[in-house]
Amino acid sequence: MGKRELETCFSPLLFDPELHADSIVVIIDILRATSSICTAFENGVLSMIPVAGVEEAKEYKKRGFLVAAERDGIILDFADLGNSPFNFSRENVEGKTVVYSTTNGTGIIKMASSAAATVIGSFLNISALAEWIISQDNNVMLFCAGWKNRFNLEDTICEGALAERLLDSPLYSTICDSTLAALDLWTLAKADLRGFIDKVAHRNRLKKNGLDDCIDFCLTSDFTRKIPFIKNGILRGDIFNS
Amino acid sequence: MGKRELETCFSPLLFDPELHADSIVVIIDILRATSSICTAFENGVLSMIPVAGVEEAKEYKKRGFLVAAERDGIILDFADLGNSPFNFSRENVEGKTVVYSTTNGTGIIKMASSAAATVIGSFLNISALAEWIISQDNNVMLFCAGWKNRFNLEDTICEGALAERLLDSPLYSTICDSTLAALDLWTLAKADLRGFIDKVAHRNRLKKNGLDDCIDFCLTSDFTRKIPFIKNGILRGDIFNS
Repeated sequence: MGKRELETCFSPLLFDPELHADSIVVIIDILRATSSICTAFENGVLSMIPVAGVEEAKEYKKRGFLVAAERDGIILDFADLGNSPFNFSRENVEGKTVVYSTTNGTGIIKMASSAAATVIGSFLNISALAEWIISQDNNVMLFCAGWKNRFNLEDTICEGALAERLLDSPLYSTICDSTLAALDLWTLAKADLRGFIDKVAHRNRLKKNGLDDCIDFCLTSDFTRKIPFIKNGILRGDIFNS
Repeated sequence: MGKRELETCFSPLLFDPELHADSIVVIIDILRATSSICTAFENGVLSMIPVAGVEEAKEYKKRGFLVAAERDGIILDFADLGNSPFNFSRENVEGKTVVYSTTNGTGIIKMASSAAATVIGSFLNISALAEWIISQDNNVMLFCAGWKNRFNLEDTICEGALAERLLDSPLYSTICDSTLAALDLWTLAKADLRGFIDKVAHRNRLKKNGLDDCIDFCLTSDFTRKIPFIKNGILRGDIFNS
């Protein structure tokens, strides 16, 4: 193909799966779903089953699965784990399959599953992810999970960081305003990432729930080389070896 | 009321009218619908009737109305005027009622009409608009018309410019990520507004259609003190005197 197109989508409500059937779709929800998934695979989880509904998660629990489930940042009473990346320690997840239900992330993973490839992105795996994307020959859609379908800044700057790496390659171009905005916001944010995030609405919510302890970790680049991807409804650990 | 909340919406698909029934909704579609409407009222148009459909516009034409109508930037064959602000000269519109149909703008004006007040915003009337908003006691929603429901940069920076003026007043606060992003993008853009807009996807479309001659005009602050507003489906010229 010719030059690869890079696009960015700020909300599930703006995403049209039919337009991206031939694209690599990168799901980004850094506080905290996609950071947690990257952490889990770095720590040896075997696979993860994303589920959107609480009832579905409960059913899996009854069948003996390890279940991570929360709503609005709060762990559900029947679940084994919450959605903080710190819950997905080697001790908790190595060699296991984890059923994973969150407020936003899992519904979106399912929505994007009809693309050429659907991969999980965060700062934690950003270099490996950029290298893998460049090694492929597809258009790219950076797809932000959003908070209750709203635009959110933390995912947008992660998209901008990834867009910067891709557009540094002559293989990519963009005429997408969302991508240009993400790039600009990343350029503003990168000198003081934590300071930039501290002004963000999402962080206020996390703070209210006492769940803001993982933010510095979620802003860390290259904690892992794993690139989780979804195939047939299951998250697996490394698309490099798929 | 207490501190007034300022919010921003990047696309009609993200707008929930029920949440903003008590708010002032500011419609922003600077290239070119809301710039043209501001220009028309400055040039003495009596009123404007926004219509979303081409057939509806044709019906009005048959009944003898002056009709401005375009799709994708191209004037429709039965129409008297296109959507460039330069079409709404004093000679063309003074003392008349104009039926107005565009790709995005008119549908959105109708969508927002259930708010406490729905007003038309652009750089052309930004100072008068900010002053009027501050003189009221409502929450504010800056509502971007979008290009085919997509995020667009030109309206976002206009929203950022307006947000800056409102947040300079101690009466307003925001926890809305979209507003924070618009402010940041405006801060980046304002030193070289035209240069910033030149990288924008929408401009490429306008240029392709030879319709980019009005961009400098649409980026001009304070061409008018008029604040067009919509009431009972009709656009009128000045909410100060309504």
